[in-house]
Amino acid sequence: MIKPRTPPGVLELLPREQIAFQRMLDAIRGTFEAYGFLPVETPVFELTEVLLTKSGGETERQVYFVQSTGALEKSGAALPELALRFDLTVPLARYVAEHEHELAFPFRRYQMQRVYRGERAQRGRFREFYQCDIDVIGKDHLSIRFDAEIPAVINAAFEKLAIGEFTIQFNHRKLLRGYFEGQGIDGERQLLVLRELDKLDKRGEAAVAATLAGEGFDLDAEVVERLLAFARVRSTGHDDALARLDALGAGTPLFEQGRDELRQVLAQLKALGVPEHRYALNLSIARGLDYYTGIVYETLLDAHPEIGSICSGGRYDNLASYYSKSKLPGVGISIGLTRLFWQLREAGIVGAAESSVDVLVALLDDADLPEALALSQQLRAAGLKVETQLEPRKLAKQLQYADRAGIRFAVIRGEDEAARGVVAVKDLRRGEQFEVPRTGLADALREALA
Amino acid sequence: MIKPRTPPGVLELLPREQIAFQRMLDAIRGTFEAYGFLPVETPVFELTEVLLTKSGGETERQVYFVQSTGALEKSGAALPELALRFDLTVPLARYVAEHEHELAFPFRRYQMQRVYRGERAQRGRFREFYQCDIDVIGKDHLSIRFDAEIPAVINAAFEKLAIGEFTIQFNHRKLLRGYFEGQGIDGERQLLVLRELDKLDKRGEAAVAATLAGEGFDLDAEVVERLLAFARVRSTGHDDALARLDALGAGTPLFEQGRDELRQVLAQLKALGVPEHRYALNLSIARGLDYYTGIVYETLLDAHPEIGSICSGGRYDNLASYYSKSKLPGVGISIGLTRLFWQLREAGIVGAAESSVDVLVALLDDADLPEALALSQQLRAAGLKVETQLEPRKLAKQLQYADRAGIRFAVIRGEDEAARGVVAVKDLRRGEQFEVPRTGLADALREALA
Repeated sequence: MIKPRTPPGVLELLPREQIAFQRMLDAIRGTFEAYGFLPVETPVFELTEVLLTKSGGETERQVYFVQSTGALEKSGAALPELALRFDLTVPLARYVAEHEHELAFPFRRYQMQRVYRGERAQRGRFREFYQCDIDVIGKDHLSIRFDAEIPAVINAAFEKLAIGEFTIQFNHRKLLRGYFEGQGIDGERQLLVLRELDKLDKRGEAAVAATLAGEGFDLDAEVVERLLAFARVRSTGHDDALARLDALGAGTPLFEQGRDELRQVLAQLKALGVPEHRYALNLSIARGLDYYTGIVYETLLDAHPEIGSICSGGRYDNLASYYSKSKLPGVGISIGLTRLFWQLREAGIVGAAESSVDVLVALLDDADLPEALALSQQLRAAGLKVETQLEPRKLAKQLQYADRAGIRFAVIRGEDEAARGVVAVKDLRRGEQFEVPRTGLADALREALA
Repeated sequence: MIKPRTPPGVLELLPREQIAFQRMLDAIRGTFEAYGFLPVETPVFELTEVLLTKSGGETERQVYFVQSTGALEKSGAALPELALRFDLTVPLARYVAEHEHELAFPFRRYQMQRVYRGERAQRGRFREFYQCDIDVIGKDHLSIRFDAEIPAVINAAFEKLAIGEFTIQFNHRKLLRGYFEGQGIDGERQLLVLRELDKLDKRGEAAVAATLAGEGFDLDAEVVERLLAFARVRSTGHDDALARLDALGAGTPLFEQGRDELRQVLAQLKALGVPEHRYALNLSIARGLDYYTGIVYETLLDAHPEIGSICSGGRYDNLASYYSKSKLPGVGISIGLTRLFWQLREAGIVGAAESSVDVLVALLDDADLPEALALSQQLRAAGLKVETQLEPRKLAKQLQYADRAGIRFAVIRGEDEAARGVVAVKDLRRGEQFEVPRTGLADALREALA
């Protein structure tokens, strides 16, 4: 006898949790499709040669390699031929480059699949987790208007998920770097300063200020104070965001380009009707180091800032330089749904859902089976999700089962009800029981569920 | 520059094919849920020790092992710790055994995920493919009524998939073995004879007859003829199925048990309203060797028997004997959707679908962007899937794009239309254009799509 267990670092759910998770996936998929994104799925493994072109360092150390038994026996020093994807961005780059001549640009794709990273086993760290990504990829050129549409998608997705109020915060890498430029910080050092400001949340202002004034950076105290003041900028409301951009004063061309794009994004968010309490400038957001080149986004749950960003992304200059000579600029975001679900469950915000089954058709007597089956089929034809109790049990047991399983309605048809052409319906959510004419049952249940 | 390409043996789809595939997945999921099955997802990898408990031989040779870079460096002679699932049955066994005390029995689960097998690379053979499974698992006992519900689920699923007429064929392992018993063939040899009859389709009657009469089997010519005559039995229609069961004459208790269960299944299929041309007895169906112990099912497309069974399964005695002391009998089926999709595409039955995007909101002039955005949001609020043309192009280009992308409707609002408070709608499927008052647009489009 082998002890049945999952490997460490995976999140496996019981059915009612899986239903809750599936509803989140469906809500996200529905939003992505509402905004005209097209589905893509890629294989779980890529050729190692293709997957590891771009990465190096930390990522490569976390890659899982795949090989069949035959290959194991023959394996020498070379890396295995296949490796599991560690994100959805490298597969997207490969996909777009491979199918470049079959795709229409700007190419709007969504992808919701699991990715794999050999993380150190740790509570809340997953080796297998869902990413839900959208990206728009242009050919040669991609208008800032696509960057401005992204927060509207984030807003619609989290509104639909209904996990609490949230704020989409954004910044612009050119605004940041242009501001540094204006402070006399040159190209190389801009990235180093950016990396330090990115640590403000973790390290606090005093520690970051000390680093920036210290050896290596040697920035004047005044410059450091200006950088910190800049990074402290947060807007509250649409007009305030515009005013704060104005208040930054004149800057270098790079800075002005960033500011201009932020203004365009703000104008478009207003035209899209995104509620203004849902978006804000946050000039401390930097998001990593090399990949992003324009707008960067983070999304925070207002009541749970400790969870960190639940949806992040930004603009990048060239998606697939390792696979294609074409210039493919893009903008995208990612929701790490496995980690988010786990955190929401820890915080008591999500948990076991009501069942996906709407109705349990009870069975009191073997002789009633044909009628129970026919009734079940009628309800299914009306679009309801139905479990038929196939073996008679005491009614109390059947109701208890439905209740524990999270099935909202139980339909009961005893001799008495049959004689009167009605069925009894027990609403287990409300704890009520009512009678409906048999012919009106499907409509009554559909109405109650709507 | 690395050539962007997928590994051999995977099926990666372009977006419009992916949409067609996704619709098939959704149709199957919808049917499984309509019959009260609950979703389960398991990790792509299992502990090797857990996964390979049960298998051996062919399956083990096809297993893909997974290891991180660190493990690669340390790897000695031992098998890697993790392996990719090669079906959804072993993970189900592990899941049920692991969560036995948290699940309600009979446990009805569906699972639709990819599985992995290191097959020889060959056209139409996949190393990564979707399986869409349902199983009902009982504790100690599971009524035949669950076996009888399965063909109703198959019927509903393929009706919804609308890929052509089909027939669900079934047989019973006890009827087969009981019949062999009656012919004086004992327990051990029953499985060997069964294995030979299973080859009838491939080898033909003459070759199978020669084997059964030849060395090792040494069956009398009369017995061989009776076995072949038995395996030739096919029913056409409900009453014919019952008559053919009657016509088999009396048999051993095992045979009678099989026949009785088949009669119960037939009666229940009638009560469930499954059209009788959709199901038939086929006494040659054996399905593998050791796993199944009762009813076995196969499903054939009437116009494409060469595709083989598109949905198969059956009853088994004990799901998880390697992981649990409990007796867990079950019944289930599996649809290998990747292979099916590929075959249907080869046969010209499925292909690029209409887009998931319902409407392209065209943009003729930069100044109209706010109005185009507002209109798009209104349509989305009404449940439509909308892509907004964010940069103005010639109208002909926009319509050509929508047409190629398979987007059915384009919404156009030029100066003239704006002045009259209407929008022009181009129905690219029908090649028609019409006008609607702006306020009635969402309703008009929803109606046209319904």
